Amino acid sequence: MDIKAYLTKKKEAVDRSLEKLMPPATAFPSVIHEAMRYSLFAGGKRVRPVLAIAAAEALGAKATGVVPIAASLELIHTYSLIHDDLPAMDNDDFRRGRPTCHKVYGDAVAVLAGDGLLTMAFEVLSDPKLEKAISARTLLSVIKELSTASGVRGMVGGQVVDMQSEGKEIDFPTLEYIHMHKTGALIRASVRAGALYARATKQQYLALTRYAEMAGLAFQIADDILDITSTQEALGKDIGSDLKKGKKTFPSFYGLEESRRRAREVVDHALGALKGFDRKADALRELAKYIINRVN
Amino acid sequence: MDIKAYLTKKKEAVDRSLEKLMPPATAFPSVIHEAMRYSLFAGGKRVRPVLAIAAAEALGAKATGVVPIAASLELIHTYSLIHDDLPAMDNDDFRRGRPTCHKVYGDAVAVLAGDGLLTMAFEVLSDPKLEKAISARTLLSVIKELSTASGVRGMVGGQVVDMQSEGKEIDFPTLEYIHMHKTGALIRASVRAGALYARATKQQYLALTRYAEMAGLAFQIADDILDITSTQEALGKDIGSDLKKGKKTFPSFYGLEESRRRAREVVDHALGALKGFDRKADALRELAKYIINRVN
Repeated sequence: MDIKAYLTKKKEAVDRSLEKLMPPATAFPSVIHEAMRYSLFAGGKRVRPVLAIAAAEALGAKATGVVPIAASLELIHTYSLIHDDLPAMDNDDFRRGRPTCHKVYGDAVAVLAGDGLLTMAFEVLSDPKLEKAISARTLLSVIKELSTASGVRGMVGGQVVDMQSEGKEIDFPTLEYIHMHKTGALIRASVRAGALYARATKQQYLALTRYAEMAGLAFQIADDILDITSTQEALGKDIGSDLKKGKKTFPSFYGLEESRRRAREVVDHALGALKGFDRKADALRELAKYIINRVN
Repeated sequence: MDIKAYLTKKKEAVDRSLEKLMPPATAFPSVIHEAMRYSLFAGGKRVRPVLAIAAAEALGAKATGVVPIAASLELIHTYSLIHDDLPAMDNDDFRRGRPTCHKVYGDAVAVLAGDGLLTMAFEVLSDPKLEKAISARTLLSVIKELSTASGVRGMVGGQVVDMQSEGKEIDFPTLEYIHMHKTGALIRASVRAGALYARATKQQYLALTRYAEMAGLAFQIADDILDITSTQEALGKDIGSDLKKGKKTFPSFYGLEESRRRAREVVDHALGALKGFDRKADALRELAKYIINRVN
């Protein structure tokens, strides 16, 4: 399968959904709607939404119904980027190829744009119109999955430890904690949300969870490698920023080559988790391979 | 009825629920759990939770079942206080009688503590254990109510306009917009959440909505008055801070006496909305009166 064409097609479906879900930039008060849209439509790859869709498809479900759930994942992801970039946090000036939200709209609006996007995700998931296609019980389980992955037991917890670790000599388990929580949790929730939508069996849910954990880890190792090897132009955000802040990364523990090898190994584990799935899971397989192709 | 005893009793029930819902302060990473608890257990009056409980009771429902919903309202309210107090926002040093969250834990942790509390609210509302007592459909409608009230169409929108208005000559409709969105939306959602829990008829839902809008407005007028007339000790937060920041308030448009008269008038409207309710709505009635007793 042509994974690039697949990514483009699903990204477009997600973007159309987001466009419909978001109030127009002219809605009052316009600055917050502009700011939310500025960060949301900055050309993100929509990795999390695509994972949710691909997981649902792997179980034989149609992509159409899962798109609003996929869109809500991108709302949460974008909120986390905006808050993480704040001067009080990671203090990053560039993201997705352009100045970060607070650089354009100021810190206060950036905090509120993040708050607005996070809240909007739950507004989207509780829309009674969705109940035509998705049962209330399934929607609740998706909300549980996403809120747990985003909160103190997930993304927020990871960001706290990440910040506390800046400039400190951390050990490898701490780095793993940061990865698993700061990025891994939402990636896992994305795949699981697709699985819940498609009414996965317990066994399928666990296999997809394993896939997601391995793919998420590979994604993070790749990100760490790209922070060193890529150019700002290619990456769209500050490069070498981990190094500059004295942040420990995979390559700082294992070097570039060993990190690349580990990424390949982890992707193999991800593919192994999909053994019991038929060709409908090919998009998930190709996505996992695509992650390490970026760094090899 | 003894409204003070009622408030104390319900506040205790909400606090017990919050204590159970929140991870312990020692949970890893502890700083975020400490920060969330610091702001959550700072002696707030739990007005929103009590309104939700009282609304459910007004319709004949038992308080027990609605308490987790009530608790989630306080999580959202506390998140909004933490973010509003940030230096980039209202820059307030005191809240509920002690230094604000960012004064104690720094800006980054304060942003994340707010994020964590907001997310936790939806985690609480999507807990499958709740489905024993509340249908999935009702929980979804509560999530819709709370997320809409908290987001750009509610609280976040109100805070944006509030910030944009600082030091500017705003007109009265703009002040009303700020009140209705920054505080009114969540107060209305609190009452409605109780109504949804208690399976209100359409008519009951609309009457309680009217009550909540009037009570919320009275609450805001009272708050504006107290910002001028109270002492920091009695209020527990910076006083005269609206004035200092050049913020327009009810008294700055109408003076103290006329503001007091309007508060009484608005409370009368709130009581009028409850005409069709029996004595089970007495707590709601007393709560509305209690609001203006603070300023008269």
